[in-house]
Amino acid sequence: MTIIVQKYGGTSVGSAERIRAVAARIIATKERGNQVVAVVSAMGDSTDDLIELARSLTDKPDPRELDVLMSTGEVVSSTLLAMTLKHLGHDAISLTGAQAGIRTDGSYSQARITDIDPGRIHRELHEGRIIIVAGFQGITDGMEVTTLGRGGSDTSAVALAAKLGAEVCERFTDVDGVYTADPRVVPQARRLKEICYEEMLELASYGAKIMHPRAVELGQIYKIPILVASSFNDNPGTLIHGGKMEFRNKISGIAHDLDVAKITLLRVPDKPGIAASVFEPMARAGISVDTIVQNASVQRITDLTFTVAESCLPRAMEVIKPIAEELGATDIVADPNIGKVSIVGTGIQSSPGYAAKMFRTLTDAGINIGLIATSEIRITVLIDKGRVTEAVQALHEAFKLETED
Amino acid sequence: MTIIVQKYGGTSVGSAERIRAVAARIIATKERGNQVVAVVSAMGDSTDDLIELARSLTDKPDPRELDVLMSTGEVVSSTLLAMTLKHLGHDAISLTGAQAGIRTDGSYSQARITDIDPGRIHRELHEGRIIIVAGFQGITDGMEVTTLGRGGSDTSAVALAAKLGAEVCERFTDVDGVYTADPRVVPQARRLKEICYEEMLELASYGAKIMHPRAVELGQIYKIPILVASSFNDNPGTLIHGGKMEFRNKISGIAHDLDVAKITLLRVPDKPGIAASVFEPMARAGISVDTIVQNASVQRITDLTFTVAESCLPRAMEVIKPIAEELGATDIVADPNIGKVSIVGTGIQSSPGYAAKMFRTLTDAGINIGLIATSEIRITVLIDKGRVTEAVQALHEAFKLETED
Repeated sequence: MTIIVQKYGGTSVGSAERIRAVAARIIATKERGNQVVAVVSAMGDSTDDLIELARSLTDKPDPRELDVLMSTGEVVSSTLLAMTLKHLGHDAISLTGAQAGIRTDGSYSQARITDIDPGRIHRELHEGRIIIVAGFQGITDGMEVTTLGRGGSDTSAVALAAKLGAEVCERFTDVDGVYTADPRVVPQARRLKEICYEEMLELASYGAKIMHPRAVELGQIYKIPILVASSFNDNPGTLIHGGKMEFRNKISGIAHDLDVAKITLLRVPDKPGIAASVFEPMARAGISVDTIVQNASVQRITDLTFTVAESCLPRAMEVIKPIAEELGATDIVADPNIGKVSIVGTGIQSSPGYAAKMFRTLTDAGINIGLIATSEIRITVLIDKGRVTEAVQALHEAFKLETED
Repeated sequence: MTIIVQKYGGTSVGSAERIRAVAARIIATKERGNQVVAVVSAMGDSTDDLIELARSLTDKPDPRELDVLMSTGEVVSSTLLAMTLKHLGHDAISLTGAQAGIRTDGSYSQARITDIDPGRIHRELHEGRIIIVAGFQGITDGMEVTTLGRGGSDTSAVALAAKLGAEVCERFTDVDGVYTADPRVVPQARRLKEICYEEMLELASYGAKIMHPRAVELGQIYKIPILVASSFNDNPGTLIHGGKMEFRNKISGIAHDLDVAKITLLRVPDKPGIAASVFEPMARAGISVDTIVQNASVQRITDLTFTVAESCLPRAMEVIKPIAEELGATDIVADPNIGKVSIVGTGIQSSPGYAAKMFRTLTDAGINIGLIATSEIRITVLIDKGRVTEAVQALHEAFKLETED
């Protein structure tokens, strides 16, 4: 029989009414002749409530204890869903991460799945049961409870799908798929029927808050098709799958991000090791550095520019100031008034025309491009925060994304 | 080093402030040179909140799922307490029932502890850590989470104390010990410095809601002294211990219970098997039958009287009516207007004078005795509910319980 892994996010199980709706969807999936393993997140804001409880006692909760505390949120929602299914006459059982055999390393709050022992799940499926797995958590070889950090429940679901040989991992949240651009910015944005892993990764990393890159990557490695759909309606959603790199020769979508700030070190002597001496301390301080651009060196003097989340700017400046001085930079310029816009598509690598069209469109709209960075299937520009909406709309129209090819 | 097991009830860990107070008490105990293992209940009303969540989804929650759900309450409070201790500079670690090695049978919601594997706790104690154990829960050999039912966390604590060879099990709640009578009824009631297991069992079973008989029994079997004290003050509390049956030849206290109703089957033919045919169906219906009295048979006809909790009366009558008819009883009389008063003390068995004094005191107060039942160390009477307060006060005075011997 076909195994389908489903994953329901926090909003999807946020109330008794929503849990009943999820149960109905699971039953429908089973009644189509599938074996169902559903992974759930914690209900609504319950994880935040637990963190608040911990913070009321200590400003620096012990990581091990915090993980055990956090893990209870998903256990609660999984049991509630399982008892609802039983109430509706379908045999079901909830499994904690430990019971589901999800083994992780011991990095509290950001554990990595090392392996899954699928024995218990297979036995329960064999008994005809629907399996509800508490997402976001696992257990170490030493019986310590861990949580998987950002994108954790998505990762649980994709990893289970891979280990169980599931046909598909269906991920239900309150958004009904991947769009050509954020529909709040571009009302004509179109839901994509499908997208390949690489494009999804670029979209996810560059501002489209659909799915954490970590889970997409896992799907890519194990070739698990991931359906992104809404638990609130029956729209068909978007299927993330392998595709072929040259299958579609066009732009899939436009990502944008407003939580960006730019830092530039002016006139740094261009010698080996500069990048490391800047970015290692940032990493140690836990600050994610995003786009990095180093201009061509003129007389062994260069400018180094990079972006961080705007919320991290003050801390980033604290870290960078003494380093810039040491390196002999003439100045540091911080600019919080920055936004990021990217076009993403597998066609980009084979068609230089896309880049030209992007720059032309922005120029015609009178939008100044502050910085350009590219990957094989993405072109990113930094522009004024205030012009981001306009830029996304103009690009969406220029690339005719509202119409299917 | 001496191991001390402490147990903190739900009110004692009901808020951040209370958790800090508990942490301070644990630290003080450790700093007196002890190894501390503390068992905690779920915070305040959190267990009720979880039950309410379940009931919002199904009127009959699956027992296995309900147990997993319930178990999260104690996990939450144990992690919060452990991180508070770490915050205060003391190495501590929380353990779930499973991690603490508490093995149970598979009777969901009323599991019995079958054994405790103390390996992990001993290792952690050896590392100098304070151990916080989530009470009320255990795990089966098949890795299923169970809860221990009524008095569960007390039972976890006493069982751990037994297995670890602890010097004492200190049980902290919002009451500061065992009194000669309920202080709300008898303001002069005196806190007992000590009481023996047998007396405590009789007091607990006959209305004094101090500690569940199950945990007291376990303490008695494994000879673990249990200190009952308040987590809200530093009063010395009451020590429950072995004592000697003839050590003190007097009354320890007076228990009373207002949640009582009496059922009498009139003129039942006295033949073998009557009691079974009445009480087996009651047990199957989950109704606890308390005091049972069968009057002496006259011409093979007898009256059978027993008591149930008043709240169970309607259901008990439903169960008993067809049975009474079948047995040929001439009538069933239900009386919800009943209260129970008991005097408890090891002296009773050797001094018939106590019974006489009890009956004389009640008679002098004009209180009619509806039924008498006795054990070796207890005499119980059923009287009008409205006269219970008066009876307790009169007996407290007659036996001079306000003064220490």
